[in-house]
Amino acid sequence: MTDVIGIQAVRAVLADSPGRGRRLYIQRGRRDGRVNELIALARQGGVRHQSVEPQWFRQRVSDGVHQGVLLECHALDMADEQALYERWSDFGAQPLILVLDGVTDPRNFGACLRTAEAAGVHAVMVPKRNSAPLSTVALKTAQGGAENLLIVAVTNLARSLKKLQDKGVWIVGADGAADRSFHEIDASGPMAVVMGSEGRGLRRLTREHCDILAAIPMAGAVSSLNVSVAAGVLLYEVVRQRLQRR
Amino acid sequence: MTDVIGIQAVRAVLADSPGRGRRLYIQRGRRDGRVNELIALARQGGVRHQSVEPQWFRQRVSDGVHQGVLLECHALDMADEQALYERWSDFGAQPLILVLDGVTDPRNFGACLRTAEAAGVHAVMVPKRNSAPLSTVALKTAQGGAENLLIVAVTNLARSLKKLQDKGVWIVGADGAADRSFHEIDASGPMAVVMGSEGRGLRRLTREHCDILAAIPMAGAVSSLNVSVAAGVLLYEVVRQRLQRR
Repeated sequence: MTDVIGIQAVRAVLADSPGRGRRLYIQRGRRDGRVNELIALARQGGVRHQSVEPQWFRQRVSDGVHQGVLLECHALDMADEQALYERWSDFGAQPLILVLDGVTDPRNFGACLRTAEAAGVHAVMVPKRNSAPLSTVALKTAQGGAENLLIVAVTNLARSLKKLQDKGVWIVGADGAADRSFHEIDASGPMAVVMGSEGRGLRRLTREHCDILAAIPMAGAVSSLNVSVAAGVLLYEVVRQRLQRR
Repeated sequence: MTDVIGIQAVRAVLADSPGRGRRLYIQRGRRDGRVNELIALARQGGVRHQSVEPQWFRQRVSDGVHQGVLLECHALDMADEQALYERWSDFGAQPLILVLDGVTDPRNFGACLRTAEAAGVHAVMVPKRNSAPLSTVALKTAQGGAENLLIVAVTNLARSLKKLQDKGVWIVGADGAADRSFHEIDASGPMAVVMGSEGRGLRRLTREHCDILAAIPMAGAVSSLNVSVAAGVLLYEVVRQRLQRR
């Protein structure tokens, strides 16, 4: 079970997978057009709703801005690797995968999911260990992105990258120390973009399984970008190249 | 007076503008190599330091991860428009300005500053009203970016955009509804990138003062990017074009 909070995140669950919803809680006095839309979606999906006092929210929600709405949900499970290959043919000629290696902060994880979903990523891959869970904060930050993405948790990331390579996927690792700049990558074929943790970057074994490493040039005193911003820059470079080739 | 928290943000102040520092507080038991480096920087800059108990931090810091370090500072002031033009010749042939119109969340403001500084932006312009302050949370999220940027607060944003145009700056507004995609902008000359608030986008008057509006394509169900991610995508498109032209 998990709590989804915030208008946008709750709407995404109710619209796309109402079967996950168990009960919608609305803070008394928070009725407006957007909340009424949520209630209508809940009714359509057979999800009950009830009004609660502000104090109820203070007790239930420890972190994150709930905007007076909370949907109690069946947890959003991550998929296993098999699901990725079962759905592979849906991804078309240019699959785009985002791999997050060691993103343990739920806010950063959620921000990466939001960005990935917007950029048209087909699947996000994370290692089972050393990753943030799909918590309330992650789902809220993802703004509905998590519900629409295939999120695959794998046991051995290096082995899973090798398997992607065998499928013809070009593995691009983000590495601040790389000689090559992000715009020199060739995004024409199937591609996976691999992001490391903000503090330590890619793990050695992960780095060794990349076909190429690319840096985002840092002009100033700041030593790194936030991981979701870096993911956005790299993913939209792929989007740009593919748009321009059409 | 303002509090700067977190290793990276405190280091940035002590290294770049030690005169702003008044006193460095270290949580007892948090001494390690990075903290010792801060103490050495403080000594060099003539800033006193003292150890305090964890409880002191709990009382003093309400929001944000302090990592056991807090620097009490003279506030970082925003500059006025005159300072922008006094320093204009330092910006070279291709000034790059980030304009934030209505970014009121301090975390988003800080994230935009971090991204802008990394992308080599010369100045950030915000309206005096309807912008987040350079608060502790903003400075922490900026990871030292705020200290190294010229941040200009203006009274009338529309008039200030007009003035930039008169200087030969091309004003590009981010607008999800624009027909043109972000990669179709021409970043060869002096340029300002204008971001609106996450909820409402650009204000009408701001939009009317843009030379061109550009959209970041959204492939999925998520309706918008985080403003710092969107700023990163647009600013690094400028960086990419300028790198490729060299």
